[in-house]
Amino acid sequence: MKRIKLVIAYDGTKYCGWQIQPNAITVEEVINKQLTKLLDEDIEIIGSSRTDSGVHALGNVAVFDTETRIPADKIAYALNQRLPKDIVIQSSCEVPLDFHPRYHKSCKTYEYKILNREFLLPTMRLYHHFVYKKLDTDKMQEAANYLVGEHDFKSFCSTKIQVKSTVRTIYSLDVICKGDEVILRVRGNGFLYNMVRIIAGTLINVGLGIMEPSKIPKVLESPERVKVGPNAPAHGLTLVNIEFKE
Amino acid sequence: MKRIKLVIAYDGTKYCGWQIQPNAITVEEVINKQLTKLLDEDIEIIGSSRTDSGVHALGNVAVFDTETRIPADKIAYALNQRLPKDIVIQSSCEVPLDFHPRYHKSCKTYEYKILNREFLLPTMRLYHHFVYKKLDTDKMQEAANYLVGEHDFKSFCSTKIQVKSTVRTIYSLDVICKGDEVILRVRGNGFLYNMVRIIAGTLINVGLGIMEPSKIPKVLESPERVKVGPNAPAHGLTLVNIEFKE
Repeated sequence: MKRIKLVIAYDGTKYCGWQIQPNAITVEEVINKQLTKLLDEDIEIIGSSRTDSGVHALGNVAVFDTETRIPADKIAYALNQRLPKDIVIQSSCEVPLDFHPRYHKSCKTYEYKILNREFLLPTMRLYHHFVYKKLDTDKMQEAANYLVGEHDFKSFCSTKIQVKSTVRTIYSLDVICKGDEVILRVRGNGFLYNMVRIIAGTLINVGLGIMEPSKIPKVLESPERVKVGPNAPAHGLTLVNIEFKE
Repeated sequence: MKRIKLVIAYDGTKYCGWQIQPNAITVEEVINKQLTKLLDEDIEIIGSSRTDSGVHALGNVAVFDTETRIPADKIAYALNQRLPKDIVIQSSCEVPLDFHPRYHKSCKTYEYKILNREFLLPTMRLYHHFVYKKLDTDKMQEAANYLVGEHDFKSFCSTKIQVKSTVRTIYSLDVICKGDEVILRVRGNGFLYNMVRIIAGTLINVGLGIMEPSKIPKVLESPERVKVGPNAPAHGLTLVNIEFKE
């Protein structure tokens, strides 16, 4: 038996997120079904990041165990033949049998993409959140800087899922301007439920002048179970990659 | 009566192109229908560029005549309320009654976008043509340079539509590399039927080593009614803008 790691890109538009659930089509389910057919074994992949409904990925990671004699690196090609065009395996390789994509230490990179102009551009509507009022990106970066480092992000998560600790480390959080695009690029050792979308919603409120950057350190110092900002819409969010540490 | 000019962006994915035709949904038809309802007049817009099925636009241009008392610049906002999300008016303004978007001298800019990497990225599949073999972009630019200037582009058009002259001027044709993206950006005083897609298909063949750049000047010197290269797929093409000359 060997363990195979897949790097997976998907357009989340039509999916109810990653994780299998009844009466809804999910990315995990589609891959399980096609892997099971391809390898003629019952396959259940274990994903690293359970992205929400509508969230996209360039490099989510999943593993599965198999007895197949197909060379590990060829599985990506064979599986892509069977997958719909909105899910594409980017690579497949063998990993140690004790490698677990959720428990292994990692650094995740997300991008939240905003289209900031007077009128929506239709060709950008599926992957960008549209904001027509001009954003003050300097203030957004000022607020973002407070979030970098190790903090209790209790006020930056939805309470739906209980976790032992709400302390996480953000390595970097950059507000990148590219013409009409504002990209929030965040790297961290892990993110709480809805954390990136709440950070995005909070920074957008700062950019709109609804919140002052100076509110951020106050919220971080006395975290309460009250969300500091709204969830920004799912379709603006993309999981860019996951780097696993040695 | 006044004449209104619209600048129109659309995602061409679901449309059978710009021009009205029986038994197919087109951009022109959708706008006519919603303008007619909005203004309570029979409106038939005249478009500048009749983009093909599946081609996108950031700035196509159309005009129509109306007796409405809605201020010209507000029509964009009112019309966008009624249009589907894949068609968005970017601006509306009054123009002289003799302004005709097809006969007025103009410079059009198109972009043909290619995703050049081993595996497709699903979030780019709708607006990029995917080529997995590595393109030699230096050779593509070398070939592109031969096309700049005034030439008889008879070998770079589909014969479906007859025109008096197949001489056109290309002001610039740049092969732009942005990571995995290769963007062919072309500006000209007018383009023959399928001309940009045939230029793209030809430059891709050059990039793949199927054709030498030196073939281009030979074709231009003795143009025949035989296409020099294939039509690249429609979904990679975007009409960026149309500038009208004084």
